[in-house]
Amino acid sequence: MTPLNLSLKKISDIVGGSLKGDASTLISNITPIEDATSGDLSFVMEDKFLNKAKGTKASALVTFKSTGFENEIIVKNTRNALQLLLAFITKNNEASNSFTISDTAIISKKATLSPQVNIGHFVSIGNHSTIAEKTIIKHNVTIGNNVTIGKKCILYPSVVIYDNVTIGDNVILHAGAKIGVDGFGYVQVGSKWKKIPHIGTVIIEHDVEVGANCCVDRGCLGKTLIKSGTKVDNLSHVAHNVNIGSDTAIAGLVGIAGSAIIGNNVQIAGQVGIASVTVGNNCIIGGQAGVLKSLNPNEMVVGTPATPIKEEYKIRAYLKILYKNAVKGRQKK
Amino acid sequence: MTPLNLSLKKISDIVGGSLKGDASTLISNITPIEDATSGDLSFVMEDKFLNKAKGTKASALVTFKSTGFENEIIVKNTRNALQLLLAFITKNNEASNSFTISDTAIISKKATLSPQVNIGHFVSIGNHSTIAEKTIIKHNVTIGNNVTIGKKCILYPSVVIYDNVTIGDNVILHAGAKIGVDGFGYVQVGSKWKKIPHIGTVIIEHDVEVGANCCVDRGCLGKTLIKSGTKVDNLSHVAHNVNIGSDTAIAGLVGIAGSAIIGNNVQIAGQVGIASVTVGNNCIIGGQAGVLKSLNPNEMVVGTPATPIKEEYKIRAYLKILYKNAVKGRQKK
Amino acid sequence: MTPLNLSLKKISDIVGGSLKGDASTLISNITPIEDATSGDLSFVMEDKFLNKAKGTKASALVTFKSTGFENEIIVKNTRNALQLLLAFITKNNEASNSFTISDTAIISKKATLSPQVNIGHFVSIGNHSTIAEKTIIKHNVTIGNNVTIGKKCILYPSVVIYDNVTIGDNVILHAGAKIGVDGFGYVQVGSKWKKIPHIGTVIIEHDVEVGANCCVDRGCLGKTLIKSGTKVDNLSHVAHNVNIGSDTAIAGLVGIAGSAIIGNNVQIAGQVGIASVTVGNNCIIGGQAGVLKSLNPNEMVVGTPATPIKEEYKIRAYLKILYKNAVKGRQKK
Repeated sequence: MTPLNLSLKKISDIVGGSLKGDASTLISNITPIEDATSGDLSFVMEDKFLNKAKGTKASALVTFKSTGFENEIIVKNTRNALQLLLAFITKNNEASNSFTISDTAIISKKATLSPQVNIGHFVSIGNHSTIAEKTIIKHNVTIGNNVTIGKKCILYPSVVIYDNVTIGDNVILHAGAKIGVDGFGYVQVGSKWKKIPHIGTVIIEHDVEVGANCCVDRGCLGKTLIKSGTKVDNLSHVAHNVNIGSDTAIAGLVGIAGSAIIGNNVQIAGQVGIASVTVGNNCIIGGQAGVLKSLNPNEMVVGTPATPIKEEYKIRAYLKILYKNAVKGRQKK
Repeated sequence: MTPLNLSLKKISDIVGGSLKGDASTLISNITPIEDATSGDLSFVMEDKFLNKAKGTKASALVTFKSTGFENEIIVKNTRNALQLLLAFITKNNEASNSFTISDTAIISKKATLSPQVNIGHFVSIGNHSTIAEKTIIKHNVTIGNNVTIGKKCILYPSVVIYDNVTIGDNVILHAGAKIGVDGFGYVQVGSKWKKIPHIGTVIIEHDVEVGANCCVDRGCLGKTLIKSGTKVDNLSHVAHNVNIGSDTAIAGLVGIAGSAIIGNNVQIAGQVGIASVTVGNNCIIGGQAGVLKSLNPNEMVVGTPATPIKEEYKIRAYLKILYKNAVKGRQKK
Repeated sequence: MTPLNLSLKKISDIVGGSLKGDASTLISNITPIEDATSGDLSFVMEDKFLNKAKGTKASALVTFKSTGFENEIIVKNTRNALQLLLAFITKNNEASNSFTISDTAIISKKATLSPQVNIGHFVSIGNHSTIAEKTIIKHNVTIGNNVTIGKKCILYPSVVIYDNVTIGDNVILHAGAKIGVDGFGYVQVGSKWKKIPHIGTVIIEHDVEVGANCCVDRGCLGKTLIKSGTKVDNLSHVAHNVNIGSDTAIAGLVGIAGSAIIGNNVQIAGQVGIASVTVGNNCIIGGQAGVLKSLNPNEMVVGTPATPIKEEYKIRAYLKILYKNAVKGRQKK
């Protein structure tokens, strides 16, 4: 990275913090506290890192409480401060008024592209597809027919979008994400599985981020829907006709079965499986849980089958006690 | 989608149903009942949707029992009817007598392609590979050397096939599927893992469908085999030398360890893990189960380690009762 | 495969075994014992395969103890022998002094490539990236800016490497692996998730192998690190700022959460999930385990939450006994 050359004063303004020390100190880099050297800014985000502040070679710290270090910016929420500072830095990097389309891209004459797009090498764009301004399509992306992509999106390399998919503004699709795949739907005739063609679609609303190598299946009829602001981590699978609300966070390797309905502001940890059920708003689902029955809003569950967290943990603990008592009993005999 | 323009009479014939109402009604679209408007046909597939039939704006329904709606087609099996109708519609769409090979595709002179194939942009096809008639290879697909692909297959974008793989007829490989990857095989010499080269192959028989971003490893020696009619959902992993029978259905995010043997007509739910064991014909394996020991034919298991479903559920229920009694006991004291 | 034409004497020398029978026997192929025909060599690696030796049509066997077969090579460690023989064969195949760059590859003028590289079709290589000698980049690979790739690496088709990633020597990245993806990091402001830009990097050291369709996220600040000799199987997910030691083996569909620290020589089975904790050297983690707390070196755990294997299995067994006794009790009444 090119050096940032930001003064501590400027950084303090960006993160909205209270500055102690030399406001003119120039910061060239932001690094983890254990790796920091002169010219670096580091973040102290948890109590356990406070003692690292003493030995650091960083030139300044952003911290949630004073570490006694000579140059420090104290903020209420260090995570928020980190986001503000990194957004400031990367915005500067990304700002671009140049729009280029690779000579190698093969774009249907029936497609409509804003003049303000960037299209990488070896990209295919099908008939009647439209791409709005300031969207970036990276290398080796395939976009089918009748696909609509909004403004300021980024499609990373090797993304594939099947036909008839609609994507909103400010959507990020990471490398290798596949959108609009046929759902896993068959009818069993004797011992044979006959494929049910999937003529539905996928709608991804604004401000959604989909992780690398994720798969989002199209509806059989109707649509698979991911509402605005929802974030999905790498290698997750959203099946046909799933309906995911707004601002829901879905970690990696999660599987959501066909026609499941997930509410708003749900938090789903890694490797969770959700059957064809309804999950209410604001639920929190622990890692590897298997949600086999619908959940009311605000439930917090773990385990397979998913069980309220307090109950599950108490039951597990009780079983351990039972077992230990039995072992003791045997030893006495 | 272009309007279907199918009469209700025609649709009734396709699905083999009993028609009530105006046989000349023109249907332009098939939609979920809650989204239906004039010109739409909707399906009523379960009791819980019967009450939606009353308020629908659809022009006609396909249903398993009469809803009282003016235009309806009554069938024995709505899922089967849906399959028949969608297959009819999409067959019409797919029927094509035009075969094109993108100028950008790089095809070895030593490869043999039927004149009746479609090859997309930025495709590579290696030496001594053969592709039979009516197969469609979409954009950015890489096919190695000595690969054989049968008739009427579809390889979606970004599929990768390593060398020496054999694929039958009517096989669908969804976007990003990787076939013939080296197995995860090493020998530990001291603390180091030395790679065991994998010189085996993968054989995928007729009528198999492999989901997006799936991985199928090649045999170390010999082959990894997926027999005819088996369907695999997105993001599943089939390791080296696995042998999967016919007409088995494998849901998403399933992992099957090296040399496992899976029978015919097995049903494997999402996120199941199967160790290097044998699973008999017709087994049903519940979501997230971990199959650590071989299963006899017709077993139905859940949990990790996988346990017969009745036993596992009863044991879990018993533990909950024990715990609840203990809590009550404590409360009495 | 072209026939090997190796004498039994030569093979015995390669695997360091003790030869019985006709040393001049010519071997053309190595196959599983059940498929073997004349000219084939097969391996007998376990007691259960000893009885297959009698009926085999193979021309010779490599075995860990005498099977009585006329031509056999007896070795101490058959797995090691298999590795040595396959490494010998494939080394011969791979040896190449021809280095070609596809005309279709688009390589930045600011990139630095050894003259001894192979670059496939439809490859993009960004500014200031460097690729060292004898590295093979296969078709449809995308390499971003400021990427460093060492010697003798193989990047299989559709690999994507984001900017600022460093890869050592002898690294294998299987098809569709995505390296340097943004981590899943947000700060919640009201109900909205604001993206934390990830300006860190990924460092993959020498002799690492990463499976097909794996995802390795970049650090938010600092780096995600995979140390030398570590092997990762297909479809696994390594989140931002994870630090994985040397010679660790990670099976398929494993998820490792942000900032987790994994030691050296750890063995992680399929579908394991690891939270943001520390796993000590030489731990063994059973399939589908959920590691929610840090593990000391040499621990062996299973289950979710991960529990020492002996304890977990005994507790499960005890619960089954309790339940069975209860059922018997009820039956007596």
